[in-house]
Amino acid sequence: MKIAIDAMGGDNAPKEIVLGAMKAVESFADLEIILVGDENKINETLTGHNRISVIHTTEVILGTDEPVRAVRRKKTASMVLAAQQVTDGLADACLSAGNTGALMAAGLFVVGRIEGIDRPALAPTLPTIGGEGFLLLDVGANADAKPEHLLQYAIMGSIYCQKVRGITSPRIGLLNIGTEEKKGNELTKHAFELLKSANLNFVGNVEARDLLNGVADVVVTDGFTGNMVLKTIEGTALSMFKMLKTTLMASFKSKLAAAVLKPNLMELKNTLDYSEYGGAALFGLKAPVIKAHGSSNAQAIFSAIRQTREMAANQVVGLIKQNIEESKQ
Amino acid sequence: MKIAIDAMGGDNAPKEIVLGAMKAVESFADLEIILVGDENKINETLTGHNRISVIHTTEVILGTDEPVRAVRRKKTASMVLAAQQVTDGLADACLSAGNTGALMAAGLFVVGRIEGIDRPALAPTLPTIGGEGFLLLDVGANADAKPEHLLQYAIMGSIYCQKVRGITSPRIGLLNIGTEEKKGNELTKHAFELLKSANLNFVGNVEARDLLNGVADVVVTDGFTGNMVLKTIEGTALSMFKMLKTTLMASFKSKLAAAVLKPNLMELKNTLDYSEYGGAALFGLKAPVIKAHGSSNAQAIFSAIRQTREMAANQVVGLIKQNIEESKQ
Repeated sequence: MKIAIDAMGGDNAPKEIVLGAMKAVESFADLEIILVGDENKINETLTGHNRISVIHTTEVILGTDEPVRAVRRKKTASMVLAAQQVTDGLADACLSAGNTGALMAAGLFVVGRIEGIDRPALAPTLPTIGGEGFLLLDVGANADAKPEHLLQYAIMGSIYCQKVRGITSPRIGLLNIGTEEKKGNELTKHAFELLKSANLNFVGNVEARDLLNGVADVVVTDGFTGNMVLKTIEGTALSMFKMLKTTLMASFKSKLAAAVLKPNLMELKNTLDYSEYGGAALFGLKAPVIKAHGSSNAQAIFSAIRQTREMAANQVVGLIKQNIEESKQ
Repeated sequence: MKIAIDAMGGDNAPKEIVLGAMKAVESFADLEIILVGDENKINETLTGHNRISVIHTTEVILGTDEPVRAVRRKKTASMVLAAQQVTDGLADACLSAGNTGALMAAGLFVVGRIEGIDRPALAPTLPTIGGEGFLLLDVGANADAKPEHLLQYAIMGSIYCQKVRGITSPRIGLLNIGTEEKKGNELTKHAFELLKSANLNFVGNVEARDLLNGVADVVVTDGFTGNMVLKTIEGTALSMFKMLKTTLMASFKSKLAAAVLKPNLMELKNTLDYSEYGGAALFGLKAPVIKAHGSSNAQAIFSAIRQTREMAANQVVGLIKQNIEESKQ
């Protein structure tokens, strides 16, 4: 099992990426890692490992780069070369904590789509109160989706949850503005019909207000709405922590009480931190491509590598291919 | 100034509705209120007021009723008769804390649209960290919107914020998945162009994660996305309070600290409670129609009545009509 990693992507690259990679090869005896990036910088952290190799390049895609243009023009960027390893059959999967849009573009143009998949989907696992999390897709790969795309998202998400998360019969929900069957816009009304007839554990429409209660294991929606919901959850949680902080610092008495509660509040913050739930998977490509959170530390990179390894080891891509073919018959 | 109120709508009807109405006529010397509903029940709370009259009816639209059908069939329902008062010129505006969908239907079929307005919009004011709030529209009146509708929402929201909230030049934001001009789906890309050319203080695209930071005074979006964002904010805030509670009750020590912080946490909860920010206005109708929160108490009803009165007194509907006509020239 070989995973190519963009060593230069993310806020803490390359140090935390390299540390995460080292931890991963120590943990998984079958794992080989190819780190792509500036060899000098990588070697500041990397200590000898016979299962970690380095491909040297100094070109990097920045967070501010326009994604599609960056992937097309920066042909030797660390992210592009990591994806290229997969295309060339030198790696089974790839991973980056860099520019999300660029990774989607690299996935699409370098790794390539599975035949029959119209649109790949970006799928993070989001937190729930119970801690089990749910897969949301798509969150931004495609702004204008068709009902058939939502069906494909459901098939891909279901397979992922079965194989990587070990859920026997993942509950699939359609994100909508009401739970009743006839609710929603043209897209969701048609998608509902398709999902109902599919060979899936479709639990019907789910509302945004119930997402964090764990109302489904896989929630499908168009990329525009998904991105909106993802950022609204993020923004609301962040704003609440900010307000909570102001509230707790309001008086001497409240400061004392807050100090006592600090570990509890940190724990709450971690439960809500979706970087704790692993990277976001790009589904519908010929090989697993994983986006780790931009602020990933070594532990988060390690989790994302483990996730990538499980996707590859459990043939998630092969199963998606097979199921998509069957769904079209 | 006469306002017709559905006395039977909402979780605490008619008692809290009647109490709110009594408080309002005491506060505003120019205000007359028509309470529509079961006279016997209303009179349990209502004490003599020469500026409150009652129209008796026992028919009620329930929260579980299918909105359009309910409005069409229950022709003597309290909500429908309240709207009818406006149509018949016996009231300047109407208000209900009942079934949101039914109130939108009553607004559309009984009160009627302003000529030139394609789609009325439902617009609540949502909380911000700073406490000033922002107007979000549409949140569910129309699932499939066109770019022109979003422009109309912006015009209507801008007038409302000027006249009712006293903001000289309301900042208009377009809800989108990125702040860059070319971002988004077909709808937002086209709406951006329209908003840019309009005579508005358009501040560009705003992201869902920045909403609670008060990034704009008016945020326009299609009803599907707006409803989604509204419910995501609600759901995330509720889930966080639930998790916070579990966290604070985890140990004896944390329970003690939590007891000290209780007033601070209640204050935080109130800041985030959007029923505190008044009712949701239905824009684009021939008269002000206001939806108070279903769980409104007397104070919330009072706020919603004050808001309705200000919309009517400041000729918001007339100005909307005039501006929509101008925008079409």
